Amino acid sequence: MKSTPPSTRAKVHRLAQRAHYDRTTIEGIIDAALVCHIAFQHDGSTHCLPTSCWRDGDFLYIHGANNSRMAQALLSEECCLCITHLDGLVLARSAFHHSMNYRSVVIYGRFGEIDDHIAKQKALANFIEHVSPGRSTLVRPPSPAELSGTRVLRISLLEASAKIREGGVKDAEEDLAQPVWAGVIPLSLNAGKAEIDPACADHPPPARPVFVNP
Amino acid sequence: MKSTPPSTRAKVHRLAQRAHYDRTTIEGIIDAALVCHIAFQHDGSTHCLPTSCWRDGDFLYIHGANNSRMAQALLSEECCLCITHLDGLVLARSAFHHSMNYRSVVIYGRFGEIDDHIAKQKALANFIEHVSPGRSTLVRPPSPAELSGTRVLRISLLEASAKIREGGVKDAEEDLAQPVWAGVIPLSLNAGKAEIDPACADHPPPARPVFVNP
Repeated sequence: MKSTPPSTRAKVHRLAQRAHYDRTTIEGIIDAALVCHIAFQHDGSTHCLPTSCWRDGDFLYIHGANNSRMAQALLSEECCLCITHLDGLVLARSAFHHSMNYRSVVIYGRFGEIDDHIAKQKALANFIEHVSPGRSTLVRPPSPAELSGTRVLRISLLEASAKIREGGVKDAEEDLAQPVWAGVIPLSLNAGKAEIDPACADHPPPARPVFVNP
Repeated sequence: MKSTPPSTRAKVHRLAQRAHYDRTTIEGIIDAALVCHIAFQHDGSTHCLPTSCWRDGDFLYIHGANNSRMAQALLSEECCLCITHLDGLVLARSAFHHSMNYRSVVIYGRFGEIDDHIAKQKALANFIEHVSPGRSTLVRPPSPAELSGTRVLRISLLEASAKIREGGVKDAEEDLAQPVWAGVIPLSLNAGKAEIDPACADHPPPARPVFVNP
């Protein structure tokens, strides 16, 4: 399902047929992410840093320490955020037509801060649920000091775009006889066997994120 | 093995004990990557886009179409590039001490272009080898027109830093009795069963990238 880009800069230019601007597609890609990359300006340089993320409604959330330079920079100006899932290696018969299957989202905008302690605690509980469903009520909740030491930021999904490449190889007709295997190696993020902390008593094992393969 | 940061902006500030500046660590993280995120300025906005990458010697390489706006922007000014591998979810007894295991590299600098056709062809063969070892000699190599339509860019690793979080949970003493499972869910990029193109004759199956789990 395609729709129109929310802004000029959020418009996908390269291979525009892979663009998606509908909220359902964008939310699906965000909800399958544990980490995003954020590009921002600080001290005269462009920076790109990874950070964990989750979604609630119309916003993508991140968190960080109170004295984080990135958090401070993000509150003072616009940024660009990107999430990418690598889904497969597309091995064509010609070097030129090799490709990758992926789902990505790019968001432009400015982060705002959640500073109310109750809203912050709810947001952090959502983060725990994103990482391990059902876990937020089992862990020791943040203390007032921990909440004060943590910043929760969110950015609107209004100026977002998605780009998806899926399917098989697209070789040119004249390359079909090339004597080489052609097709796709699927890739996915998989969870290994949970490694219990040696000091941990016998408790039910944790849930993995729903979007991570067992 | 730690060393000293190559520049002020490439210095890791948050949790500086996780920083690594030695080339072996940095190269190991780059060599395990298929995709990087690049932050750059263009038309008055900061952008962040994913692209495939590989390493040869002292440089990280990317490629793109000749008319790519990103390639043009990267050649005209400095950028910041980030690679992140998510290795595990660290599930602590307190919400606050939850963490993730990861390996990341951040590179600052300016891309240069490889415009000699022979060097470009060698670089693209390296890319194929990175994606599927042994494949570069089996596929139909790029034609002169394909080489002309492709840009190959590279950036020096001189101004790079790595950051690594590994190991288990680090709960506070007073939280150890919390009745909840604590430990790590390891995460990794896994290859699924290769999906042969329906039009493909019987050829030996492709190699997966060496750093991707079978």
